[in-house]
Amino acid sequence: MEEVPGSVGTSASFSLRLGQTVFSTASLLFMSLGVEFYSYTAFCYLVTVMGLVIPWSFTLAMVDGYSVLVKCPLRQPGILVIIVIGDWVLSLLTLAAACSTASVVDLLLHSNSSYCPLKLCRRYQISAAMAFLSWFLSFASSLLNLWLLPSL
Amino acid sequence: MEEVPGSVGTSASFSLRLGQTVFSTASLLFMSLGVEFYSYTAFCYLVTVMGLVIPWSFTLAMVDGYSVLVKCPLRQPGILVIIVIGDWVLSLLTLAAACSTASVVDLLLHSNSSYCPLKLCRRYQISAAMAFLSWFLSFASSLLNLWLLPSL
Repeated sequence: MEEVPGSVGTSASFSLRLGQTVFSTASLLFMSLGVEFYSYTAFCYLVTVMGLVIPWSFTLAMVDGYSVLVKCPLRQPGILVIIVIGDWVLSLLTLAAACSTASVVDLLLHSNSSYCPLKLCRRYQISAAMAFLSWFLSFASSLLNLWLLPSL
Repeated sequence: MEEVPGSVGTSASFSLRLGQTVFSTASLLFMSLGVEFYSYTAFCYLVTVMGLVIPWSFTLAMVDGYSVLVKCPLRQPGILVIIVIGDWVLSLLTLAAACSTASVVDLLLHSNSSYCPLKLCRRYQISAAMAFLSWFLSFASSLLNLWLLPSL
C-alpha cells in the first residue's frame, strides 16, 4: 500500500492538524475576547464550532505526532472512517461558521458604525479570516484521508 | 461494474437534479423579486451562486433524462471527474451562500425592524431555506458520484 502524504500518521498530516489547531484557537480568541459576541447568533455559532474543532484537531495532532515518533502509521480502516466522517462534518460546520461570521461583519461594517466600533469590527474580521484558514486546512486533511480510504 | 443509485445517468440522479433546479430557482425568485437585495453583499452572493447552480443542475438533469430514455448510462471517467469537481465546488458555494444569507436575515430580524419589514424578511428566510435544501440535494449528488468514481 502506498503512502499518501497528508493522511493520518504522516508528518504532513501533523503539520496540517497543528495549523488547524493554531488557526482555530486564534479565531476563538479574537472573537471571544471581545465583549459582545454573544449578542449575535453567527458569532456564538462560530465560538461553538471552534470549541469543537480545537479538541478534535489537537487530539489528531497528538496521534500523528506519536505515529511519526514511533514510525508506525495508523492503518485501521474503522478508525480511519471515523476520522474521515468527523473531518467532513467539522469542515462543513467550519465553512458555515466562517461564512456566517464574514457576512455579519460585512453587514455591521457597512450598515451603521454605531453598532460596531471599528477596532472591534477589525477583530471580528480577523477572526473570520482565521476561521477560513482553519477550514482550508481541515478540507485538505479530509480530502487526503478520503483519498487513502479506498486503498485500505 | 455495479450501478450506484443516484450517480450520473440514473433516474434517481434525474430526480436529485430536478430537485436542485427547482429549489435553486425558488431561492433565486424569493430573493430577487424583493427590491433591496443588491444592498446586502450576502444576498448578491446568493443570487450569483444560484445563477451558476441553476444552469448546471438543469443541464445535468437533461443529460440524465436523456440517458434514462435511451437506457445508456454515461460512463466516461473524464466527464465524470468534471461533473464531480463541478458538483463539489458548487455545493460548497451553495452552502456558503445559504449560511451567509441565513445569518444576515437573522441579524436583520433581531437587530432593528426598521431595516427590514417583516414581510420582506420572511421572503429572505424562505430563500435561505430553499438554498439549504438545494445544498442538501447537491451534496447528495456529489457524494454519490464520488462513490462511483473509483469503480471506473
